[in-house]
Amino acid sequence: MYWLVTPCHLFRETSAVTTLSPTPRTTLDRHRERALHDRGALLDVLADALVCHLGVIVDGDPVVLPTAFGADPDGPDRGGTLYLHGSVAASSLRTGLESDLCVTVTQLDGLVLARSAFHHSMNYRSAVIRGSGRLVDDEQEKVRALGLIVDHVVPGRASTLRPHRRKELAATVVVALPLYEASVKQRGGDPVDDADDIAAGIWAGVVPVRMTAGDVDTSADAHGVEIPDHVVRRAGRLRQRE
Amino acid sequence: MYWLVTPCHLFRETSAVTTLSPTPRTTLDRHRERALHDRGALLDVLADALVCHLGVIVDGDPVVLPTAFGADPDGPDRGGTLYLHGSVAASSLRTGLESDLCVTVTQLDGLVLARSAFHHSMNYRSAVIRGSGRLVDDEQEKVRALGLIVDHVVPGRASTLRPHRRKELAATVVVALPLYEASVKQRGGDPVDDADDIAAGIWAGVVPVRMTAGDVDTSADAHGVEIPDHVVRRAGRLRQRE
Repeated sequence: MYWLVTPCHLFRETSAVTTLSPTPRTTLDRHRERALHDRGALLDVLADALVCHLGVIVDGDPVVLPTAFGADPDGPDRGGTLYLHGSVAASSLRTGLESDLCVTVTQLDGLVLARSAFHHSMNYRSAVIRGSGRLVDDEQEKVRALGLIVDHVVPGRASTLRPHRRKELAATVVVALPLYEASVKQRGGDPVDDADDIAAGIWAGVVPVRMTAGDVDTSADAHGVEIPDHVVRRAGRLRQRE
Repeated sequence: MYWLVTPCHLFRETSAVTTLSPTPRTTLDRHRERALHDRGALLDVLADALVCHLGVIVDGDPVVLPTAFGADPDGPDRGGTLYLHGSVAASSLRTGLESDLCVTVTQLDGLVLARSAFHHSMNYRSAVIRGSGRLVDDEQEKVRALGLIVDHVVPGRASTLRPHRRKELAATVVVALPLYEASVKQRGGDPVDDADDIAAGIWAGVVPVRMTAGDVDTSADAHGVEIPDHVVRRAGRLRQRE
């Protein structure tokens, strides 16, 4: 019963080498047939996701936090840059930099309902990115990163907003993670059952799932102001995609 | 710019005590107004989620893996039990037991588009559960846990499946985590903007998002077999919920 990615991304010594997984610890040792090896697949998984889950170590134990992110394939870090941000009042992003970070992005595509519990699974695309985080000190890079994070959620929005205020930038921590050490994995299609279970004539199949958008809600304090085109487009694209 | 939960769940020494967060490290120190304090809220967040993100430490660094889960509010652990599972061929679940585990569940409800980048956010419900994992050795509990994991994804399905085979159980690791040390947080509603940005007459609002289901796909090797009611109900409930 290998539901989803349990353990989708497993990091263990192996001799396999791929272009996307340059280190042993991001080389899959389970369900290698589900691994994707090119950078385009990594960027596609990131592009479709609204949030990531950031893993850090706090006081010796792991903590997993959901958060927004932005990606710059041509960013200054090796392989490009993933950007995260947080409040300076929060210690996790900064203390988390004392060890490596892990950022995981998961897009769920379907519930895979097999004849046996054991062969149940999920259809998904997921990426695991590991590496050393870099605190972004340069103001120009920080502003650019925050724009990428806004535009990741709603493309085209950052350029419509007023400039950051100084106190807003001072209150915000931005961390960069290289898009270098990563694994990408996906599963698609029907359940894979044992032959005797198939012969028994039991139903099996997939419930496709996806994220969708409802009607855009204008804020109570903005009644009468027209919804910007980039917001309408964002909602429409979430509704249309397969 | 506090997108989503950055840092939604932050664990730092504080004197606040709630019924749900019995230890300092699961007491929120940022956006405490977004904290929920009752066990019902925790179970509701878990009930609505299809996957969780499990954080473990591997060779000194954090690794975050998406995976299915099941929950038993009356389970044998303090506060009830969250169940995870994996393959015995995978080392992460077992080596991860050498330190505490962190399981995070995130339900995204909306993109909160403010007048400034800084006040952008997301509407969400999320839970962070931390604690020491317990390897489930007892076969009866293991079978029950696997049934809960199946039924979490499609309620009513486990009882329709054939019994586990011995080799299937032997190939599967089940880990229990107490539903005891947890924090639950949510954000809802409109963006909260600065007064001068509101006065400028700029649009702001929310794009509601949610998971939905498509038409159930019957496997190519099950053509002609009727889709079970519990599967039809599951897809329908995913489509209908707000």
